[in-house]
Amino acid sequence: MRTLQVDLGERSYPIYIGGGLLSEAGEYFERHQLAKKSPVLIVTDDNVGPLYLSKVETSLQDAGYHTVSKVVKAGEKSKSLEVFEEIMTVAIQSGLDRHSVVVALGGGVVGDLAGFVAASYMRGVKFVQMPTTILAHDSSVGGKVAVNHRLAKNMIGAFHQPEMVLYDVDSLQTLPIRDVRSGLSEMIKHGLIWDKEFTDWCREHTEKLLALDPETLGYGLTQGCRVKAQVVSTDELEHGLRAILNLGHTIGHALEATGGYGQFLHGEAISIGMAAAARIAVNRGRDRSLYSDTKELLEGFGLPTTLPVEMNEDDIIAAMMHDKKFKENQIIFVLPVVIGEVEIVSDVTLTDVRRVIRELKEEGQHV
Amino acid sequence: MRTLQVDLGERSYPIYIGGGLLSEAGEYFERHQLAKKSPVLIVTDDNVGPLYLSKVETSLQDAGYHTVSKVVKAGEKSKSLEVFEEIMTVAIQSGLDRHSVVVALGGGVVGDLAGFVAASYMRGVKFVQMPTTILAHDSSVGGKVAVNHRLAKNMIGAFHQPEMVLYDVDSLQTLPIRDVRSGLSEMIKHGLIWDKEFTDWCREHTEKLLALDPETLGYGLTQGCRVKAQVVSTDELEHGLRAILNLGHTIGHALEATGGYGQFLHGEAISIGMAAAARIAVNRGRDRSLYSDTKELLEGFGLPTTLPVEMNEDDIIAAMMHDKKFKENQIIFVLPVVIGEVEIVSDVTLTDVRRVIRELKEEGQHV
Ligand SMILES: NC(=O)c1ccc[n+]([C@@H]2O[C@H](COP(=O)([O-])OP(=O)(O)OC[C@H]3O[C@@H](n4cnc5c(N)ncnc54)[C@H](O)[C@@H]3O)[C@@H](O)[C@H]2O)c1
Ligand SMILES: NC(=O)c1ccc[n+]([C@@H]2O[C@H](COP(=O)([O-])OP(=O)(O)OC[C@H]3O[C@@H](n4cnc5c(N)ncnc54)[C@H](O)[C@@H]3O)[C@@H](O)[C@H]2O)c1
Ligand SMILES: [Zn+2]
Ligand SMILES: [Zn+2]
Repeated sequence: MRTLQVDLGERSYPIYIGGGLLSEAGEYFERHQLAKKSPVLIVTDDNVGPLYLSKVETSLQDAGYHTVSKVVKAGEKSKSLEVFEEIMTVAIQSGLDRHSVVVALGGGVVGDLAGFVAASYMRGVKFVQMPTTILAHDSSVGGKVAVNHRLAKNMIGAFHQPEMVLYDVDSLQTLPIRDVRSGLSEMIKHGLIWDKEFTDWCREHTEKLLALDPETLGYGLTQGCRVKAQVVSTDELEHGLRAILNLGHTIGHALEATGGYGQFLHGEAISIGMAAAARIAVNRGRDRSLYSDTKELLEGFGLPTTLPVEMNEDDIIAAMMHDKKFKENQIIFVLPVVIGEVEIVSDVTLTDVRRVIRELKEEGQHV
Repeated sequence: MRTLQVDLGERSYPIYIGGGLLSEAGEYFERHQLAKKSPVLIVTDDNVGPLYLSKVETSLQDAGYHTVSKVVKAGEKSKSLEVFEEIMTVAIQSGLDRHSVVVALGGGVVGDLAGFVAASYMRGVKFVQMPTTILAHDSSVGGKVAVNHRLAKNMIGAFHQPEMVLYDVDSLQTLPIRDVRSGLSEMIKHGLIWDKEFTDWCREHTEKLLALDPETLGYGLTQGCRVKAQVVSTDELEHGLRAILNLGHTIGHALEATGGYGQFLHGEAISIGMAAAARIAVNRGRDRSLYSDTKELLEGFGLPTTLPVEMNEDDIIAAMMHDKKFKENQIIFVLPVVIGEVEIVSDVTLTDVRRVIRELKEEGQHV
């Protein structure tokens, strides 16, 4: 079992990473002195619920907690105000009070959704993350919670740090392979923005990571969480540095929106976004290997790096316009400098973006 | 012009109280160095908009701000997730960014609603309160923002402090008399919980306050805001002391919910709630004058202190059950000790509450 600390003064919390942790949820709740007299609400989805909900319920109930649960439909569409309101209804009807804890048992969708419930229910109650996807090594750390607006992703949300992150890596064994790849995309991102050595390690362990080798996965997730925790500790509310975590996300979010949140998984979209960012950097004068190395690394993990021809350029641009990474009509962009280092620039133009969209479409046709 | 400071460390802010301030909004924005390149969103309602929106728009535009506005239907029903989402849509479509300011121009409804938009849009942007009701001397100070759930009031919200409160007392001249009374109810509450002298002053100035005499009103609002600011500075997140502001609210909120948020105005409901709290205190052994003095004071302002016979006792109890002032099945209650001082007790029982409901119904029939 590995423990990492997210350092945020009063709001600091530990990330526990290891096997079998879901069955020990009750002990961890007790260790964190979470109230026993107030109901605990577990939010999960209809893929994760049947697999792991009873494990968590049993452990909490054995420790003397009263639990209620809400199972939402799996998928990004559940990150909506409508589902948010449904969960609020359950919370009220189950008598959750100010001492209650909301648990997110699932991937990033459940984490973001349940986290915004925890942030807003009675103006904020305690929150525990139990991530069950690889991607959630990213989403469960840092306190960003949100639901989507139909016009743009993550538009409605809060900063709400959890009490702890309980990361049971055993649960990852049931992940569909597309979600394995999607999650590894964020792990690679943590290498690309911060740590060349870790990036190299990811490349060298491509096979083992894809095969979900427990020891390799445990190490990779710990390193990924460590990068995330360091960045977040330095800049909790994203006044500056934290923005580097958005590598690949400016275009990535636009692709998710354009595809109606169905075509691409989050990690797939940001994989294309990271390839695009590297290409823009090269177009602006960085070494050509920056793009080819990034592309090769991602493709090694079976991740997409090109754009389908049928995707409409104007739709992608329109989605970027609605997104929040604009400032006074210039686009803020995170661009790689070399592998393991990025910069935040504010002078990327629409022309640059239109060019890279066309280039990534062409690349797709050459395959 | 009077200025009060709400003392909250990094989140401190001033309350400006005086005549003609809405026409000076632009100067106040500049003084607070609010960004000119990002659109400002003004939220108001369809009573206040026609009267004061253009004043604020003109002043901001003259100072070089770009403004957009959203006019919601007047009334408590607009404090809903549906209207919240509509405002989010306008915010996104108008290109609000992280440097934008959301302005609440109106009473407590617009303040709470726009405040929750400001707290959640892109995980939080700046917020300015421009209260136009007497009641809003309470709601605009302290950072509590929320929308209602159909099962209970203010269930979904945040703590989000404004950058400033710009309180133009001239705007109060157009208030309907019922809202004048309703707002004075919270002013009286600030006396009852904290300051016997101010309570006496309110009683002595009943006529002048009801007649909206500018000088008297300005003083009363300043004193009310001062009490609120002091309590909030001591306990921003309601871990303890801040709960005293809920005098009259436990029963008051239940009455609002039972009446479908239409029968009673907020200040009317808490007026009955304050009479009920005094009665419970007397039933538990406090001096009988506590109840009669409170009742007389409130009635002097034309505020209700009794319950309509046709109100269903069980409905009121059920609404209290759904409300958030429960803790482990005991009701937390704020009870007066003497005029100007309250205590928070946790051993008020359902029997006590049922008894006072019956007593206040009887009182109503004796009139
Ligand atoms: N808050 C943040 O900082 C942050 C960071 C990155 C991503 N995100 C968000 O995270 C979301 C994506 O997260 P995700 O990829 O985990 O999506 P997800 O939660 O939808 O999970 C992916 C799929 O895997 C299923 N699943 C989850 N765990 C499983 C398991 N153990 N076994 C079998 N199936 C399982 C889910 O039901 C779902 O179908 C996006 O909404 C993204 O915006 C948030
Ligand atoms: N956040 C807090 O700390 C807090 C504290 C107390 C009350 N509240 C909330 O405040 C709300 C009640 O506030 P309110 O009484 O101001 O209600 P309100 O905003 O509905 O205003 C009352 C009525 O007066 C109209 N109005 C407002 N200003 C006017 C003006 N200058 N001239 C003419 N008409 C005008 C409005 O259109 C409305 O019809 C409730 O929702 C309550 O929960 C919040
Ligand atoms: Zn991401
Ligand atoms: Zn009130």
